[in-house]
Amino acid sequence: MHIAYISNAYKGILNLNEEESMHCVKVLRMKVGDVFCVTNGQGLLFDAVLCETHPKHAVVELTNPRRGGDKWNFNMQIGLAPTKNSDRIEWFLEKATEIGVDTVSFFESFHSERRAININRLEKVAIAAIKQSIKSRLPQINDIVPFEKLIKQPFDGQKFIAWIDESIQNTLATSYKKDSNCFVLIGPEGDFSKEEVQLAIKEGFVPVSLGKARLRTETAAFVACHTIHIINSL
Amino acid sequence: MHIAYISNAYKGILNLNEEESMHCVKVLRMKVGDVFCVTNGQGLLFDAVLCETHPKHAVVELTNPRRGGDKWNFNMQIGLAPTKNSDRIEWFLEKATEIGVDTVSFFESFHSERRAININRLEKVAIAAIKQSIKSRLPQINDIVPFEKLIKQPFDGQKFIAWIDESIQNTLATSYKKDSNCFVLIGPEGDFSKEEVQLAIKEGFVPVSLGKARLRTETAAFVACHTIHIINSL
Repeated sequence: MHIAYISNAYKGILNLNEEESMHCVKVLRMKVGDVFCVTNGQGLLFDAVLCETHPKHAVVELTNPRRGGDKWNFNMQIGLAPTKNSDRIEWFLEKATEIGVDTVSFFESFHSERRAININRLEKVAIAAIKQSIKSRLPQINDIVPFEKLIKQPFDGQKFIAWIDESIQNTLATSYKKDSNCFVLIGPEGDFSKEEVQLAIKEGFVPVSLGKARLRTETAAFVACHTIHIINSL
Repeated sequence: MHIAYISNAYKGILNLNEEESMHCVKVLRMKVGDVFCVTNGQGLLFDAVLCETHPKHAVVELTNPRRGGDKWNFNMQIGLAPTKNSDRIEWFLEKATEIGVDTVSFFESFHSERRAININRLEKVAIAAIKQSIKSRLPQINDIVPFEKLIKQPFDGQKFIAWIDESIQNTLATSYKKDSNCFVLIGPEGDFSKEEVQLAIKEGFVPVSLGKARLRTETAAFVACHTIHIINSL
């Protein structure tokens, strides 16, 4: 079944935005009375009936609000530096949204090759992913801030910094305690600087490894996110 | 450090192939005496010294053969149907190679949208991934065969079919026993047909879920591969 996104929808009669209207009316050629599904990105799914087929401002009626199945009892935040090739970040975001992530925060790091992100584009990727995987919750995407600022933000849960160093014996999988919130920092393509690691440790981040393999930034971020889900499923 | 791939290299003085020669000589502008690393894709890494800078048939001397760190005590095979968009399969292969997979086998399924793969292209993706992540072992990629044929091939280990059905309570993470070989089948975009699931069960494949999220084929394949690594790391 087709699924559309209406930000902040709660109930009643509403407009689809231009993109969603176009998709329903022009691409899928829906008619008045056709039924589909709507996600509001904040935990609710609805049945939707098309009431008016305007190609830019289609009207829908939402009924039967219900909680989506994509709720987990921990909060997961991934902090990462954008990759040089922005496709790779978009890929991570799509995949992390599919398996489930609460917050993705970007930071500027000493070795960062890219110091800006297109947050509108990333939000579109996340919206497409929640629609594709019928999710009711849209991850929060936080625009890029300096590393020092991100690590000083309050976070109520376990904090980890995934970092490539032979001295690190503990893995994220064995260090993370299930059912708890967690925030995992993933380094840029040139990894964290020693100073950044020291700063993060001072702020309570625990150094962990993601295993023996040397991973690309976006793979590491996805692997961290999936590791937390697996540990919580055991 | 640069890493090149020479299939079946064991020791001594050898030629790089045309692509690797071009990369070393033209792109990286290496000189005689420059040192880099070579993987043979079969478990060995070497120190390599450039002896001749021919742009198509560069000559190298390999010394100091050593086993790569990318050896695990189980054999993992992922069987999947190619996705309609072949980029998604290439993405899976890149990521699975990064985290580690032994064999990737493609099959034709009742709901398959694509019935052919470009195995040469996929091998190039896997070679690029082992070079990027300094792996000594190249995954084996098996060309597409009918589903019925693939599931009848002998496999010494646990066999699973990951399939979307509410009746399935067991997850791959809780069903897989660590340190054992495993073969996981992942369905096509329209999922397996009921007949295919029955055939697989008859051949000893155990139905499992990959969790609550509805995943794309390539995400499911990667998630299966990573789940096995995590369970073995606990």
